[in-house]
Amino acid sequence: MNTYKLTISYDGTNYEGWQKQRRADSVTVQETIEGALSDLFGTETKITGAGRTDSGVHALAQVASMRAETEIAPDKMLKAINVRLPEDIAITKVEIAADNFHAQKDAKGKHYRYNVYQSPIPRVIGRNYFYQMPYPLEEEKVHRSCKLLEGTHDFRAFCASGSEVLTHERTVYKAELSRNGDWWIFDFYGNGFLRNMVRIMVGTILEIGNNRLPLECLSEAFQKGERALLGKTAPAKGLWLMEVYY
Amino acid sequence: MNTYKLTISYDGTNYEGWQKQRRADSVTVQETIEGALSDLFGTETKITGAGRTDSGVHALAQVASMRAETEIAPDKMLKAINVRLPEDIAITKVEIAADNFHAQKDAKGKHYRYNVYQSPIPRVIGRNYFYQMPYPLEEEKVHRSCKLLEGTHDFRAFCASGSEVLTHERTVYKAELSRNGDWWIFDFYGNGFLRNMVRIMVGTILEIGNNRLPLECLSEAFQKGERALLGKTAPAKGLWLMEVYY
Repeated sequence: MNTYKLTISYDGTNYEGWQKQRRADSVTVQETIEGALSDLFGTETKITGAGRTDSGVHALAQVASMRAETEIAPDKMLKAINVRLPEDIAITKVEIAADNFHAQKDAKGKHYRYNVYQSPIPRVIGRNYFYQMPYPLEEEKVHRSCKLLEGTHDFRAFCASGSEVLTHERTVYKAELSRNGDWWIFDFYGNGFLRNMVRIMVGTILEIGNNRLPLECLSEAFQKGERALLGKTAPAKGLWLMEVYY
Repeated sequence: MNTYKLTISYDGTNYEGWQKQRRADSVTVQETIEGALSDLFGTETKITGAGRTDSGVHALAQVASMRAETEIAPDKMLKAINVRLPEDIAITKVEIAADNFHAQKDAKGKHYRYNVYQSPIPRVIGRNYFYQMPYPLEEEKVHRSCKLLEGTHDFRAFCASGSEVLTHERTVYKAELSRNGDWWIFDFYGNGFLRNMVRIMVGTILEIGNNRLPLECLSEAFQKGERALLGKTAPAKGLWLMEVYY
């Protein structure tokens, strides 16, 4: 019995997120992959993801751990899994890991990217992979908002209601805007992210950049922990899980 | 009665190309837009595109001409058309043109882009908008192939069979590779392109870059006019019509 580390890419458009759901009619990325693995190994096989992603969120490199009894070499296994997967999910790497490797508990940090296209003129190509913001943005305010989000804070205000976690303290190592014309690309590196945290950060940054919220709402939200002080949750489709660090 | 110039963007994935088909069950971009216009104006309205695009080909800025009797101002018309269009087609500009403006006959040139992702590791995000080439490419040979395609040539070898045109002579002003890591982006500027011409040029460049065809096949194809001397037609999904020049 070996433990494997799987690196996985998916287009989240047609899935109810990563995690298996109670609803019988929903299709998730996790159960789609488990179906392919169970078919390959001829026995029910489970995986554990580094983190959940919501419906519509994409991943360039999600990570999952798996225990399996097999003689198949990792590079052959990669191909054998991929032929059993639909075109919107692919395994990009298979590695043998330490026996006790656990994709979720061992994760030290994550990199998320959020893609914004700022223009009133509709852009239809690739529309499932970015959020189009029709209103103008003040670049300086956007940069300053990113800076204020960096560091160790109580992020309870930046969290979907109903999330059960032990602590809301998280460290954002870096929150950075890269602008290329109408494209505003946000990169967030942190030791962990609460449910919807990146989407609430981006939604708030965009409202600050558009002068609908004051820059001060960020520090106030850290102090008071009130979700209502912040902007709307930005749409799922703009969010990509880029990398998980171990 | 005014003549209008419409600039149009579409995701070609779910369409049988631009042009109206004889087959009753096919859905094309042109007839989808004509349906929206006819609904808006309350009378059957036709448009003429600058050029056809095949099924799966995308456009950032296709151009069409239209004659219509209406009092609606161009900026209001843009919004009124877009609310009647599906999410994969959008009008990005409406302008009043000279009475005799004809989007196809008046076109002086076009810019097409072809997107290649070169890697054996499957990339699923945005997979409908680029072609994934699993084999390695020699960059120097790719650059040299592009250079050889520039200029005025008889491009009959670079043409889908059954195309009816008066002449196969075309001028490629510029054929250029921009490389960014695994992304190989090809830009073609020309006074006109034959059916499948860009896709055959790219398919041939990729085979030359992968040492499956000699660089000399290009000059030989110009001389002999034989399609069989060239590479496979690259998949439609990597091709974008970027701009039409008047």
